[in-house]
Amino acid sequence: MDTSSAHRFAIIDLGSNTARLVVMQAIPGYAYRLVDQVREVVRLRQGMTDEGMSEPAMARGFSSLRLFKRFCDSTAADTILPIATSAVREAANGPVFVDRVAREIGISLQVLDGEREAYYDAIGALNEVPMKEGIVVDIGGGSVQVSDICEGSFHAGASVTLGALALTERFVKNDPATDDEIKGMATEIRRQLDSVTWLREKRGDMLVGLGGTIRNLARIESERVHHPLGTLHGFTLSRDSIEESIQLFRELPLQDRQGIPGLNSDRADIILPGAMVLVAIMDRLDVDSVAISENGVREGVFFERFWQHLSEPVIPDVRRFSVLNLARNYDYEEQHANHVRFLAGRLFEQLTSLHGYGLPERELLDAAALLHDLGRIVGYNSHHRHSQTLVEYNGLPGFSPRESAIIALLTRYHRKGNPDISDYELLLERDDEILLTRLAAILRVAECLERGRNADIDDVIATWSDNVLRMTLISDEYPAVELWQAERNAAQLMEDAFTRSVRFDSFAPPLEWPEGEQRPSHGLPLDQ
Amino acid sequence: MDTSSAHRFAIIDLGSNTARLVVMQAIPGYAYRLVDQVREVVRLRQGMTDEGMSEPAMARGFSSLRLFKRFCDSTAADTILPIATSAVREAANGPVFVDRVAREIGISLQVLDGEREAYYDAIGALNEVPMKEGIVVDIGGGSVQVSDICEGSFHAGASVTLGALALTERFVKNDPATDDEIKGMATEIRRQLDSVTWLREKRGDMLVGLGGTIRNLARIESERVHHPLGTLHGFTLSRDSIEESIQLFRELPLQDRQGIPGLNSDRADIILPGAMVLVAIMDRLDVDSVAISENGVREGVFFERFWQHLSEPVIPDVRRFSVLNLARNYDYEEQHANHVRFLAGRLFEQLTSLHGYGLPERELLDAAALLHDLGRIVGYNSHHRHSQTLVEYNGLPGFSPRESAIIALLTRYHRKGNPDISDYELLLERDDEILLTRLAAILRVAECLERGRNADIDDVIATWSDNVLRMTLISDEYPAVELWQAERNAAQLMEDAFTRSVRFDSFAPPLEWPEGEQRPSHGLPLDQ
Repeated sequence: MDTSSAHRFAIIDLGSNTARLVVMQAIPGYAYRLVDQVREVVRLRQGMTDEGMSEPAMARGFSSLRLFKRFCDSTAADTILPIATSAVREAANGPVFVDRVAREIGISLQVLDGEREAYYDAIGALNEVPMKEGIVVDIGGGSVQVSDICEGSFHAGASVTLGALALTERFVKNDPATDDEIKGMATEIRRQLDSVTWLREKRGDMLVGLGGTIRNLARIESERVHHPLGTLHGFTLSRDSIEESIQLFRELPLQDRQGIPGLNSDRADIILPGAMVLVAIMDRLDVDSVAISENGVREGVFFERFWQHLSEPVIPDVRRFSVLNLARNYDYEEQHANHVRFLAGRLFEQLTSLHGYGLPERELLDAAALLHDLGRIVGYNSHHRHSQTLVEYNGLPGFSPRESAIIALLTRYHRKGNPDISDYELLLERDDEILLTRLAAILRVAECLERGRNADIDDVIATWSDNVLRMTLISDEYPAVELWQAERNAAQLMEDAFTRSVRFDSFAPPLEWPEGEQRPSHGLPLDQ
Repeated sequence: MDTSSAHRFAIIDLGSNTARLVVMQAIPGYAYRLVDQVREVVRLRQGMTDEGMSEPAMARGFSSLRLFKRFCDSTAADTILPIATSAVREAANGPVFVDRVAREIGISLQVLDGEREAYYDAIGALNEVPMKEGIVVDIGGGSVQVSDICEGSFHAGASVTLGALALTERFVKNDPATDDEIKGMATEIRRQLDSVTWLREKRGDMLVGLGGTIRNLARIESERVHHPLGTLHGFTLSRDSIEESIQLFRELPLQDRQGIPGLNSDRADIILPGAMVLVAIMDRLDVDSVAISENGVREGVFFERFWQHLSEPVIPDVRRFSVLNLARNYDYEEQHANHVRFLAGRLFEQLTSLHGYGLPERELLDAAALLHDLGRIVGYNSHHRHSQTLVEYNGLPGFSPRESAIIALLTRYHRKGNPDISDYELLLERDDEILLTRLAAILRVAECLERGRNADIDDVIATWSDNVLRMTLISDEYPAVELWQAERNAAQLMEDAFTRSVRFDSFAPPLEWPEGEQRPSHGLPLDQ
């Protein structure tokens, strides 16, 4: 991404438990990346009464906002988008607080009502998780939002005061919570969820979860199963896993809860009620799992600007955009990557009757073709390994962990080595190794045919018999470099993948290749 | 590095054993990086007689050059710098070959005479290994060059026909080589080295080794000791280790030699004579070790252009430049990095009587300050870990492995965590952990004082008693963000490092900080 033309959006989110500042560097509609983040536990709702937020709580909030504002000024944020949620919204002294923040700090907090907060949650989630019909749930510190998604759009939203901190403040006095306290919370959760009448009509629909509490539950599970990817994009949290965690939260006192792998220690005191709310919602929907969205209300606010020019601020194709965004963030060579994708796609299509794959596999190949050279930003040597690392670290919103793992491995094996799934053996199976080998072979051929990085090869024709697979290159001139590279570096893998001996030749005659001079032939190591 | 203004230099090196093409992307005098590399074993000297190179050997060379030329055309190299060394230089039909290459391929090979080859070796080495007086030795396939370095400049060079392939061709018929064959080689090595009369006067001087044979010997050793860095920059190869390898080469037949970790399998048949030559030269100089240069003749040719504007094409300060080159390659934020370096340096100076360190430690701190944020090119989350990885992967020419490891760890611990040397425990010792902790603490304070990335803090004053270390910030306005960050994220490590409780305050009064509002204070987790 060309940083000189990028815009810096600072999103300030004053929540009931946590104040956050995230800075996104973005070229609207093109690409974005997180470039800075600060988080402070403010516990704004702590000690809240009918008269509103307590003085110490407001002082903590005020102090954080003052610091965030100065931080934005120092780091030259172009646009500040400040929001406040349930604590400020519900406090009797909320308007006074907002006025004072505007006057003394110069930040105009947009206080989201429950429906608006649910809307931004939905926008955040829809930009990460492809979904037609379903529910988005955001368990915050103060409130819980549920959003009704119909035909891929936000349809309705509701907010209930079932946030993790709100319930803890109201019901939990002992550590760990007593059975009576838990019973009291369960009753309250039931009562408030009953008020969201349309929730009943969504039985069996997809459930997407976001917010700190749910992310933490997912991290606990990802630690438990040794999830091999660096992010939670595409992660699914099972009901069984949440109940296992609830059991732990009920048994362990605070200090031991803080030691649970994956759980933020500053959230250990309020995690139990959040987990209970999630299970209660799953009960109502009658679903066994919740898909995790790393995006939430802040990203919703951000995407409203990023996709301002669209009729609705939602990526039309999450998977396509997440591949592009990654490629653009790492300054991919667009024409080279596109041409490798084109050539790989041409081979994939022609070989269909040999491999039997269809659109889902083609999409993985296309993605890997665009991403295969990412690692060059780290350095030329071993750049295929760096590509794998970068895909693994960033993750690919919209793709399942299995699909992301295959794409990461395809970038790894676009160059050198025998495809091997052992890095992700928890996600992949034996059939995936065959798939990986075939797609990697196709990608490696395409890369060799684009070794000059100049789109010299117009097309490739694949024909075969029972024993021989032949690929004929179409180009204006004799493609000496490409034949040499394909024979040396891709033929063997192609032979392994399609169990035929492999031949490369060319439409254009070898005009420049004098008789008697040694022609390229494979068999020796070449690239280093 | 801004690639749009960068120049692409393609260096073609037609050696006796190997033909190589390397592509360097460079802004002369500013930064460079390797962006492509192709290598082909041509064995140009194989079967050479008094009449010159054999027809098959020339055909292999011709074929490679033709491919390299087309490759350069495709990938839009701006400048092609083609050289040929001993095989072409010594062959009776060398001039005919060169003419034909120029006429039919359009490449004007510069055939280096022995002294010129030794000159480029020296330029390559001097741009990587700081050296005043010493010898550079390059063991190639055909010839061996020795360069005499006086007062940091190339003084004289000589070439003898003791290359690994040349000796193998002439003396070795059996596998593994017999005692008689080894004796014959030893006699020939002695005879030819005697001809370089000035070598005797260099007894005890530093020896730097380069070229494929020596790099391979170093890689074998680095595998043997599990060297934890990603490169051989700063690596020292001991005489004992070379003799251990020679013993292996003498005992094992080719197939087993090819399995030696670190040895290129296509070099296993010619590695023994090269190792013998190196030991013979060490004997003459009476030295026990050879410093490895990853740069060689190709880089010498490249640096002649890169430093064309200097009186001599040698980096005035290898260490300083290698830090800058790395920072520039990863688009560091120059002003932020410089200001962190400045503030860290100010603290280091003032705290001298507490830590007792001097210029060598200061240099490590300065380097880490420039490199601390490298990992941001990968992504914001965990960028301190990425910084360590990037330093480890690239290495830092001019620094010893121990120094490089400390710099890598300083970038790691500029943010979060308790400094720990276990990643490099083979290189570091207990005292280094104390050094690391102190320098990391200073760097972390400097980073927090530059958290706004805008040079808001003009200076810092450090004063202390037996129990308290106080740091007073100088700035135009009250530095709320910096105090907050320093107290939260750097105070604890500073306390550990200097065994005093730590206080931060400010010259500028907290004008904007209303009475009764909570001031920043450390103790809670903050950044995520």
